[in-house]
Amino acid sequence: MKRIVFLLVAVATLAGFLASRTSASSNPREQASPVEASPIYGVTIPPGYRDWKMIAAAQLLVPGKIDQLRAQLGNDIAIRAYKEGTRPFPDGSVIVALHWNRVPSKDNNEVLAGPFPGAQSFLVGSRVNMQIMVKDSKKYAATGGWGFGDFKDGKPGDEALHKTCFTCHEPAKDRDFVFTHYAP
Amino acid sequence: MKRIVFLLVAVATLAGFLASRTSASSNPREQASPVEASPIYGVTIPPGYRDWKMIAAAQLLVPGKIDQLRAQLGNDIAIRAYKEGTRPFPDGSVIVALHWNRVPSKDNNEVLAGPFPGAQSFLVGSRVNMQIMVKDSKKYAATGGWGFGDFKDGKPGDEALHKTCFTCHEPAKDRDFVFTHYAP
Repeated sequence: MKRIVFLLVAVATLAGFLASRTSASSNPREQASPVEASPIYGVTIPPGYRDWKMIAAAQLLVPGKIDQLRAQLGNDIAIRAYKEGTRPFPDGSVIVALHWNRVPSKDNNEVLAGPFPGAQSFLVGSRVNMQIMVKDSKKYAATGGWGFGDFKDGKPGDEALHKTCFTCHEPAKDRDFVFTHYAP
Repeated sequence: MKRIVFLLVAVATLAGFLASRTSASSNPREQASPVEASPIYGVTIPPGYRDWKMIAAAQLLVPGKIDQLRAQLGNDIAIRAYKEGTRPFPDGSVIVALHWNRVPSKDNNEVLAGPFPGAQSFLVGSRVNMQIMVKDSKKYAATGGWGFGDFKDGKPGDEALHKTCFTCHEPAKDRDFVFTHYAP
């Protein structure tokens, strides 16, 4: 009986693993560079992240330089920590931040002009980059327990870029170095 | 052996069902009015929607009236249709659009001022409303196969509001009446 239970659990685990791999491989972006890791931290793009649960949405504007809509997704460990208010985030938490160019939608504006004169609708355009935070309190003890990765078109940025990650996140130390709040 | 397999599958299914119920009920917003349905369409807030996969993020600005960040989530049927380009969306597809007040983040702006002078960071504030589209090609044949629901604080809007839903979505007929594109 015990052997049968073990066998079934093993089969179920394998099936789940294969299902998650299949799901992950359906997004070409994730296939681009499955083994390329960020400098300093060795963080890679997590398979299947595009199907993770949403933490929040945001906007960043630096006039003349940056004009983005953004969203943050979390793996199940990170989402649970958000919902339960667990800080610091437990090891295994992964947060990905997707950054897109913000583009006006002419189509939507035409539709909205009737009920909402002057409406300005903005949508996500092409992906600018994605940023990843991986919690491993031992491996990344020197940087608040977080490893960082900044990827553009599936390729990690250089070492100089990755030296700025923790410096920028340090002011959020009282929130375990994470800026994003969970959206209601 | 067959009986044991059946028993284990049943237990696993039940565990999964209970887990999904627990997950759904952990969000107070979803508990607010579990049975209140939208007028005309009878659409209700789907349990667990906050954990659905993200379709895209967006922004809507009507100067002096509306200043929102937005995100759209889909159930598994809708997400699969998006990924595979299936149109019209199959029956059972559900799309929810979350609309938040857009609020500037003083904290983030202070952090960003160093590396990005003039940076303006905006986050999601309180929820303004949520809009739901449910595909049922027979039940909602008169409105492109879609039923609509517009909820504020868990309560559906009135009949007059819901009369505007299909009128507004009609211009997107060539995209099965859905405005939102799947974000890269």
